[in-house]
This record gives sequence, C-alpha cells and structure tokens, in this order.
Amino acid sequence: MIHPSSPATDMRHHVVVVGGGFGGLQCIKSLRGPGIRITLIDQRNHHLFQPLLYQAATTILAPSEIAWPLRQLFRDREDVTTLLSTVTGVEPATRQVALEDGERISYDTLVLATGARHSYFGNDGWELHAPGLKTLEDATAIRRKILFAFEAAEAARDPALKQAHLTFAVIGAGPTGVEMAGIIADLAHRILPREFRRIDTHRARVMLIEAGPKVLSAFSEDLSDYARASLERLGVEVVLGTPVTQIDADRVVMGDTQVPCRTVIWAAGVQASSAAEWIGAPRDGAGRAEVAPDLSVPGRPEIFVIGDTAAVPDASGAPVPGIAPAAKQMGDYVGRLIAGRHAGAEAPPPFRYKHLGSMATLGRRAAIADFGKVTLKGRLAWWIWGVAHIFFLIGTRSRISVALSWLWSFVTGQNSARIITTPKGSR
Amino acid sequence: MIHPSSPATDMRHHVVVVGGGFGGLQCIKSLRGPGIRITLIDQRNHHLFQPLLYQAATTILAPSEIAWPLRQLFRDREDVTTLLSTVTGVEPATRQVALEDGERISYDTLVLATGARHSYFGNDGWELHAPGLKTLEDATAIRRKILFAFEAAEAARDPALKQAHLTFAVIGAGPTGVEMAGIIADLAHRILPREFRRIDTHRARVMLIEAGPKVLSAFSEDLSDYARASLERLGVEVVLGTPVTQIDADRVVMGDTQVPCRTVIWAAGVQASSAAEWIGAPRDGAGRAEVAPDLSVPGRPEIFVIGDTAAVPDASGAPVPGIAPAAKQMGDYVGRLIAGRHAGAEAPPPFRYKHLGSMATLGRRAAIADFGKVTLKGRLAWWIWGVAHIFFLIGTRSRISVALSWLWSFVTGQNSARIITTPKGSR
Repeated sequence: MIHPSSPATDMRHHVVVVGGGFGGLQCIKSLRGPGIRITLIDQRNHHLFQPLLYQAATTILAPSEIAWPLRQLFRDREDVTTLLSTVTGVEPATRQVALEDGERISYDTLVLATGARHSYFGNDGWELHAPGLKTLEDATAIRRKILFAFEAAEAARDPALKQAHLTFAVIGAGPTGVEMAGIIADLAHRILPREFRRIDTHRARVMLIEAGPKVLSAFSEDLSDYARASLERLGVEVVLGTPVTQIDADRVVMGDTQVPCRTVIWAAGVQASSAAEWIGAPRDGAGRAEVAPDLSVPGRPEIFVIGDTAAVPDASGAPVPGIAPAAKQMGDYVGRLIAGRHAGAEAPPPFRYKHLGSMATLGRRAAIADFGKVTLKGRLAWWIWGVAHIFFLIGTRSRISVALSWLWSFVTGQNSARIITTPKGSR
Repeated sequence: MIHPSSPATDMRHHVVVVGGGFGGLQCIKSLRGPGIRITLIDQRNHHLFQPLLYQAATTILAPSEIAWPLRQLFRDREDVTTLLSTVTGVEPATRQVALEDGERISYDTLVLATGARHSYFGNDGWELHAPGLKTLEDATAIRRKILFAFEAAEAARDPALKQAHLTFAVIGAGPTGVEMAGIIADLAHRILPREFRRIDTHRARVMLIEAGPKVLSAFSEDLSDYARASLERLGVEVVLGTPVTQIDADRVVMGDTQVPCRTVIWAAGVQASSAAEWIGAPRDGAGRAEVAPDLSVPGRPEIFVIGDTAAVPDASGAPVPGIAPAAKQMGDYVGRLIAGRHAGAEAPPPFRYKHLGSMATLGRRAAIADFGKVTLKGRLAWWIWGVAHIFFLIGTRSRISVALSWLWSFVTGQNSARIITTPKGSR
C-alpha cells in the first residue's frame, strides 16, 4: 500500500534521500527550490560526525557531542520531512522505495547515500569478537569493552588471564586504527596507572596489526614513518606486513603466532551498503555502485548514488576515497544538479572530486596532515586538525562542548567520558 | 576461595563498602585513618547523581554529565581499592562478602549502602511495559521510548494508533514523576511541534496518575496545589486518587477506565535492595534493614547499613526519607564513627537526621522549595534548585558542563541530548 508522505494533492517534485550522513545532509542543504519537497529516510534518528567517533570509543567525548537529531537539523525546512525507518529495497520501475514495515514511498528523484559498513573479508564470524567502529552503538560497545578489560584484569587472579585482559589488538593501520591505538595506549600508560591497585596498566600491550607494509598507507612515506615512530613512542606495538588469520574470543592469530587477547577492534576493511543491489546497478569489488559522470545510475537519470556507497573515479582514475569531504562534495553536486534540473537549467559538467588533504591524530598531542604540497606533523598539525574538526561540527552547542572537552582533557590530562552502561537485560 | 584484595601481609583494618552511591561515597570520604584500608564494591563503574537522572531521561542532559567513574574519584586515595563486581551475599559469621564470580572478600568492618530499586507492588509483570528510573541504563531506555513514541506517531497511518503513540502515562506523583511529566509535556508542546510534519505534537496527552489525593504529598498543601496548577498549565493531565490496576504493552487501566497508551513510566514505588536479607537483619515493610541508633546492625556492631536501604527513624519517629542528603548524612556519620572507633575514641551520640528541605522542578522554568519555615515557588525556587544541584555535582568539569547545558537550554529553548541509540543486536 502506498504510504502518502503528504496529501495526494501535493504535486511538488518529490525527492527521496536515503541516508542522513555527510552526503545525504549536504545534498538536502544544496537542494532547494519552489516546487520541490524532500523526504529524508534514515534508520537512525541522528547524523553522526564519524571523524570523531574514535574519541567516543576511547572515552574522550560523549556520544551526544558528535551526533545531532536529523529532525532537529531540518526543523526550519518546511519542505523536508524526516522519517525514522529502514529501507529494504527500491523498485525503479514504479519509482518506489520499500520500507521494513511494509510501507512504500513514491519518489520522482531518488538519492542513495547509505554509506559503508565493515568488511571482514569473508570471515563474518570475526565480527562477534572484533567489533568495528561505524555507529554510536559501536563506539559505546568498544568503550565498554576497553574499560571492562582493565576492570577484568584488576579482578583476575591468574597472571596469564590478567595479561590477556591487558592485551589489546587493533586490526588495520588506516586512520581509524591508528587513532584508536594511540588513545588506548594513552589510557593504559598515562591516565589509568594511578587508578588500579592490583594491576600495573603500564604492562598493557596495545598492538596495531596491519597486513600491508605501512601505517597510514594513504599518506606520504615521510608522514607514514613519522606516524609509526610516534605510535611506538606512545607505547603501541606496530606489527606490519602481517595479516590476521583468525580471531577468537580469547586470542588473535597471525599465521604461526597466537596472542592471548580479550579485546580486538576491527578497523581493517569496509564494504559499501546494499544500495547498488537495491537498484541492480553494476558494482565494484567493494560493492559500490558504479555511476555515470553526473553520479546518476546508468540508464536511470532519476536515481543518484553518492558517498561511500558510490564508486567514483577521480581525475587519475583512482576511486575517490570514502571520506567525509568526498561525500559532502558529491552531495552538494547532486543537490544543485537536481534543483537546477527542476528549474530547467542546463546539465552541469561532470562531478570532479577535489582532494583537500588528509589528517590523522597520533595520541593526544600530535597529528599528521597531508595537504599535497604542504605536509605538517606534530603539535601544529594537531592544532590544525582540532580547529578543522570543530569547524565542521554542526552547531555552536557542539562546538562549545567539544572544545570544552578537549580543553579539559588538555589541561587536566583526564578523559571525561568513561561511564560504562550496559544494555538493560544483560548482566 | 578467599580473594586477597591485597597481600596477606597487609594488617590494616579492612573496611568493605558495598555501593558507590551518595551514602557509600560520603562514608569513604569521611573515613580516613592510618591503619585502615577500604575496598569499594559496586556493580557499576560509576557514581550516579540521581537527582538529575530525570533530565538524562528527558533529553536535557547527557548521561556522562551526571555520572563519574568511581575509580577516577578515588585515584588519589591510596587506601581505597575499587572493585567492579556484584555482591551476592554476606557471611557475618566468617566476615566475608560473596561476589558473583564465586570469589569472597574478607572484611573487618562492613558498610552496606546498596540503595533502593523499584517496587511494582507485587505486579512485577508491569516492569516490562513501565520502566522505572534508577540507573543510567533506565534513563537511556526511557529517553529512547519517549523519542521513539513521537517517531512512531509520525510514521503511523491509523489515527487511533497515532494517538496511542502520542499518549504518555507517568505513574506516581512524587518528585520523579512530577519532574518527568513536566519535561515530557514541554517536549510535546514547546520543542517538538516544529519538527514533525504529519503529527501535531500539541495533541500529545501527558498523564500523571497518582493513587493518593495530592501531587508531591511530602510537600505542604500550598506547594502541592501550586505544583498541580503549574503542571496543568504545562499541559500535564493530573489524575489523582486513581490507582493503576493494569499495565499492558498498549494500554493503562485504572479501574473501569482504559487508556490506549504506548509509553508508560513508573515512578510510584521503591523497595530496598537485598542488603537486609544478606545479613538476616530485621526488615520493615519496604525491605529496609532496621538498624541500631548508631546505624549498625543489632548484635553485629561491625556491620553498618546506610542510605535508602536502611530504616532509620527521625526525631518524630517517621522514617528518614530516601533522599540523597539523608544518605550523605548517614555516610558521613558512619565514616567518622569507624575512623573514631579505630583510633580508640568514644562512641559518638546516636545518628540524628537533619532535614534541610525538599525541592522539585515543574517543567523548565519553575520549581517549589520547602525549607520548613520558608517555602519558595516559581522562578526563584528554580534558580535556587539549579544552584544547589550544580553545587552538589562532583567536580568542576561536570559543573561547567551541566551549567552550559542548562544555559543553552534556557537561551535557545532546545534540549541537547536527543540521540537515540539502540543496544547492538536489536533492530
């Protein structure tokens, strides 16, 4: 049964945007025009600032500091309706989106911005033992795991068990893995030692395990080497050129080497969401939808795919990276394109990704920044990283809150978001 | 097997405190002395500021603003060991505390400060549909329920179902119930109307149902009447003299009246924790342990019971209320008593509770305060309430954060903690 998202007399051009992340949000911001109405569908009620998610997972920030209710963000847009729901499929022939409760929503134009999820390279059983970091729930679960590990080590009597609880393995030395490992080492070696009486948290082992030959392989060789040295100074054990072959509840296996370990965090692979499957579009190896130069689906000019779930080549032919600025650029491009199309304007030139730079933090006081010709490392890079991220947060409230959290952490050396809560019904 | 909480050569007098709430914390703060060591056991890793818990449940504050890791609070007390564990029983004969993992901890002196939990007056099946508000997990679950109710109403097509989702019932017109009802009404009538397109949140029905004849029966008649009028002005439907007879997933029943309702919150009854059962002490009707004038267990001078889980008569013979100041006074008394006893001092006079006053908020801008001879209502009472609660928070970080949250809410009219997260594995 068709679900009227507004009275049947509403003849405006209906754009349905699936996904309230960076791509979807920017698309809606850039898409305005008389005669257009928009429905935003997301399976969660909030927009998440993923670049800072690792800080929620490692007790520096609270979840509410990096997420905003979508409904609230668009309260002043009369033309935008927000729906909390899960899309299960798309029928391009009838121009309908299917929702999990059985309802359907008709669209005139569809924008799929559903992002990416973790890939365990076929070893889906590892997910139980090695959670990834994509959502607020992930961050809370990882934070709980990390803090419980120290608690369990404090309570354990068997020295081998104590050490297993104090052994952490982060898999994947991209920005997420590097940032997580750095902060866990900081917790173990700087913040927590004074708080435990039966364990010496300095003896925690924080391993960063990477199958490839470098940490942060997307950065220059010089920055990559600097990052590795910084991590080692922080107390991270960097293990390169070593694929993980097995992950169990109590150990990580790398070929012939077994390490007893109770806390494993996955930061090693992503795959696209199901968007390409929904519309039967051609896909690349990571499941991303291959799109036309204007980001529409070949043969379906009314359907667009943007962000991490789209395979878009950059000027050199390499795939545009799955990062927030890329998603925003695509969202902006498509938003303007749709508005222009509706107003009868000419089709714009093809989408061209503009890479502004990459940054990654190394512990609490250092970062690297690669702006192409200009690279920075150390304390200056960290300050620039901080300013940039605060700038891109949404709203003054969050900017003040995050700035305060960071200032507090800087001045007192303490992390402020260390509460363990457990879902009701467990323990 | 006996669990050494420190090397067998440690001959200090060992005080075990069970419960890191207001009572337990104050006891430890007041209990210092050479030759004494303390072990604090709590089933959670944090101390919770319960008076502001309703604000975490109604999107004003984030959980991390009102809770502090116990371990962090005592990092500078070398004499205090913190254990995250659940106590399952006490063996007074052998002076041991039993933990859920099978371990035991020996004590020389024991302080039970385990607080209270909800009572459904024998109707335990109601708990599933009508959660109470005692822990951070409760607050997050209630917040999720409230926000989902509006989302579900927006998505529903059947008008009766829409209205059921927009009907909220808070059971119990004590301070918690009154405070919750006031803020839910504020959400429905002031904050959310602009954010929904298919429902008129003004049509939400917020019921406060009380079996007794008054709201806030612990306050004077004048303040109670004022509170009722304030709530009604806020849009709360105050239903007095009406016991609830049944609560299901989709309705609340009061005698012959059935109200279709999808969100029910329980604030109507508490009972003590199991402390009295653990030690075989005499109990009152609410399960609280009846203690001697010095708060020790009759016949067991080395065991003390304090806070909500103790039955202590005040000067008039009425039971001391289960509020934070009472727990703190008892904790302070017992802490000093134990320290004094160990130093060979004389036994102090019996514990005497000093009632400083009661306060309750009514929506976002008003409160009532009853200091006995002096009573206040309205905006002034609300400012005093605010200042008092900020003062009693722990640590500058929280004071700044909460003050900022309230200031923001005051200036912008927006609540900032509206993120819905779902435990992993569900939906």
